[in-house]
Amino acid sequence: MLLENEVLEDLQYNNLYIIQKKDGFRFGMDPILLSDFSQIRNHDSIVDLGTGTGIISILLSQKVKHCSIKAFEIQEHMANMAQRSVLYNQLENKILIIEDNYCNYIKYISKNSIDVVVCNPPYGRQKSTIQCEDSSKNIAKHEIKTSLQNTIQTASELLRFGGRFYICFPSTRLIELVEALKMYKLEPKKMRFVHTKINKSPYLVLMESVKNGKPFLQILPPLQIYKEDNIYTEEVNKIYHI
Amino acid sequence: MLLENEVLEDLQYNNLYIIQKKDGFRFGMDPILLSDFSQIRNHDSIVDLGTGTGIISILLSQKVKHCSIKAFEIQEHMANMAQRSVLYNQLENKILIIEDNYCNYIKYISKNSIDVVVCNPPYGRQKSTIQCEDSSKNIAKHEIKTSLQNTIQTASELLRFGGRFYICFPSTRLIELVEALKMYKLEPKKMRFVHTKINKSPYLVLMESVKNGKPFLQILPPLQIYKEDNIYTEEVNKIYHI
Repeated sequence: MLLENEVLEDLQYNNLYIIQKKDGFRFGMDPILLSDFSQIRNHDSIVDLGTGTGIISILLSQKVKHCSIKAFEIQEHMANMAQRSVLYNQLENKILIIEDNYCNYIKYISKNSIDVVVCNPPYGRQKSTIQCEDSSKNIAKHEIKTSLQNTIQTASELLRFGGRFYICFPSTRLIELVEALKMYKLEPKKMRFVHTKINKSPYLVLMESVKNGKPFLQILPPLQIYKEDNIYTEEVNKIYHI
Repeated sequence: MLLENEVLEDLQYNNLYIIQKKDGFRFGMDPILLSDFSQIRNHDSIVDLGTGTGIISILLSQKVKHCSIKAFEIQEHMANMAQRSVLYNQLENKILIIEDNYCNYIKYISKNSIDVVVCNPPYGRQKSTIQCEDSSKNIAKHEIKTSLQNTIQTASELLRFGGRFYICFPSTRLIELVEALKMYKLEPKKMRFVHTKINKSPYLVLMESVKNGKPFLQILPPLQIYKEDNIYTEEVNKIYHI
């Protein structure tokens, strides 16, 4: 099951394990917080845009008895690793890893059909991010679409009316996020800021938006990571199932 | 100095007093928080859109040695009361109360000339709010402009390049606020959420935006009003100069 330079990480929750590179990219706290923040209902159809190690899909699969998750990953070795994690956890009835650019979603999924889209995007402005080719003429008005816009456009196209989109993003770029969501008819409905400590600026925003939703934003109480230096708050312990 | 049904309120700060109605509209905490949040530099030219009792202008006048504040108030009796408060505090060299609709600003102030605009708007969607007439053709694209859009358009027209706009608004309507600011080239730069308690959703957002500013948002640590029931936090005591 493991290739060279890989390690099997114990999630210490529901007997789940995940394969990671020993010295490559390893998942951090953001996908854990985003999975916790995402509201999943039984029988939801879910798409994960850029699943990486598969961590978000694997965590979401635990939230309900039945769900169908399609997880895109463009990098071959990551998709392969995520696929092996799915098999190791016997989640192949819930999670399908698709090794492709999510911009090609139409090969696998109908438009306007999905209940939930989730994405923990790369935070760089253009580097190591995905550009969709787009032949539609009305896009030509925008000179360059950012990677964030591509992600959000894809999410919007996938979602059914009333479908939910979950994303985390650096809070310094909240305005850009809101603009892109509104551009693609995803109405921000619920938002939570993540602070290392409560007397510091947040570093991350967790966002729920609803396709074609009516404007009304609920901002949740702040999520605080540490109560003292390197001691998690009770809420974070709960999220980590500690 | 006082008319019938008026009372002289001691601000318990810098020997300032303000005239209020005994049983009419009385200022609450929001203008105090907004004044504290607003950054004023010496010699700034300032416009207060809808000053009411004059509370914000009077508080801002204390932040620097020299400044010039023009405060619009459309209701005659409020403008008259604010004017008497200015005189009582001997602030007539810093504050000019203008009894007019702020949409008529061009009669008093040049476009693109002001350093700081501040506004504690009414929070209702259309009621008791100000509608500007607008003959400009490109506005006709929008069917109905909200009162918020009128306020923000006025602020944007008044401000010089790089000028700052301070507003407070219900946090449930943050998205609407951001959209309107972006529409009129006011870039959100600094934001602070106000919570009664830290484990509750915020009820108010304090926002600094900069005309023609570059996108980069700083979200300040949350402002918490109460530490226990009806006991202010130290920060609020400090804002109230207690």
